[in-house]
Amino acid sequence: MVSDSINPNISVDCVVFGYDFKHLNVLLVERTLIGVNNETIFSDYSLAGNHIYEDEDIDGAASRILEDLTGFKKVYLKQFQSFAHPDRLKKIRDQKWLRSIGYNSQNRVITVGYYALLNCKEVTIHPGNRIVKWTPVEKVKKLAFDHNEILSNALDDLRLKMRTSPIGYELLPKKFTLSQLQKLYEVIYDTRIDKRNFRKKIAKLNYIVPLNEKQKGVAHKPAQLYMYSQEVFEITKREFFDITI
Amino acid sequence: MVSDSINPNISVDCVVFGYDFKHLNVLLVERTLIGVNNETIFSDYSLAGNHIYEDEDIDGAASRILEDLTGFKKVYLKQFQSFAHPDRLKKIRDQKWLRSIGYNSQNRVITVGYYALLNCKEVTIHPGNRIVKWTPVEKVKKLAFDHNEILSNALDDLRLKMRTSPIGYELLPKKFTLSQLQKLYEVIYDTRIDKRNFRKKIAKLNYIVPLNEKQKGVAHKPAQLYMYSQEVFEITKREFFDITI
Repeated sequence: MVSDSINPNISVDCVVFGYDFKHLNVLLVERTLIGVNNETIFSDYSLAGNHIYEDEDIDGAASRILEDLTGFKKVYLKQFQSFAHPDRLKKIRDQKWLRSIGYNSQNRVITVGYYALLNCKEVTIHPGNRIVKWTPVEKVKKLAFDHNEILSNALDDLRLKMRTSPIGYELLPKKFTLSQLQKLYEVIYDTRIDKRNFRKKIAKLNYIVPLNEKQKGVAHKPAQLYMYSQEVFEITKREFFDITI
Repeated sequence: MVSDSINPNISVDCVVFGYDFKHLNVLLVERTLIGVNNETIFSDYSLAGNHIYEDEDIDGAASRILEDLTGFKKVYLKQFQSFAHPDRLKKIRDQKWLRSIGYNSQNRVITVGYYALLNCKEVTIHPGNRIVKWTPVEKVKKLAFDHNEILSNALDDLRLKMRTSPIGYELLPKKFTLSQLQKLYEVIYDTRIDKRNFRKKIAKLNYIVPLNEKQKGVAHKPAQLYMYSQEVFEITKREFFDITI
């Protein structure tokens, strides 16, 4: 239950990462400045964000903002960094846009950055009255406010966390092939991985569980499907303690 | 250069971790509520924190707060998480203390958590007019505000980051022995590490560089000293890419 009272000093921005088996994409929201004669003065994109309510925790606000904008529930969503540079909302176009929607453009706003992870093919966006689009992260142009910096830091954090936590599976469907898993790592780290070495490593991980099931509806020879088991990971993760430092 | 104007909505709290070769300690600051007759109503401890100035970035604020309180400069200091629960300052003793120092106790304050890493034997604290003390993290009692939660999350983050980043060396002196390095990991992860396996792993890490120098002034046989090289790490870290997920 949230009140109608918005906190003018704290916002949340969600970097929604979606993987489509070819690219890592980010969900962008169109931002348009409308003039007095109803003409479009400019149109660009921002991350999915908004202010929090006074009686709301930030984790709750992040879930609400994501759900309002996309219809997504139960998506992996994690705080990674806050941004509070005194000038972060001070660019002329940002100032104009803030005034146009009735915000006090002089307020200092700290924004708490979250990222969400999902597979584009597994979700359908219900964006309400906003216009949203998936864009491959390497093709993102100049965004609103400091959102390019937020996106870039989210990506750094994702790359780091995927080396110690099993969060990469959030970007895949529940059942996946080993080629799909390998490709995910190649895309995220912008690198090529040797197939034999990769499969050797994966074979040692008890929490990647082979299923008695193969791909359906593919033109090539259908590959075996696997799933990631959080339960098995919890039991076995001590085995993977190692000093990579 | 900072203005005199304090932002009432954004604060920074620093979890200052100090290693003394036996314990991981945290620097706590005494907080005392003084009554109208100058009597002490209560006295407890908090993390090192304060509000930010209006024209200050949060990283800058964190450095300033740490330096004001301890005299430490050039210490490893990293943002890890923000905390903004609506009730985080609402406990009765916290409310009383906030009013006693002239703060509007009804303000909602988001605090950005940082942690600092250092070796207790390598620094001398110059705490100004505050009373500070090192306490082993496992012996920390009930702290002010939500500072127990902040400390606990900082420790989780440190444990995770030490597995992918060479930040553990910040807790050691510039020159250290392999036993000191092993003990550090045993303390942080509350575990026993097999000496032979540990030395085998370390021997493969080019960035832990043996020096032509031994310990001085020790009762036992002096051990060889090593240093961590960031330069070597930067060049070789691709070798340690591995899927532990």
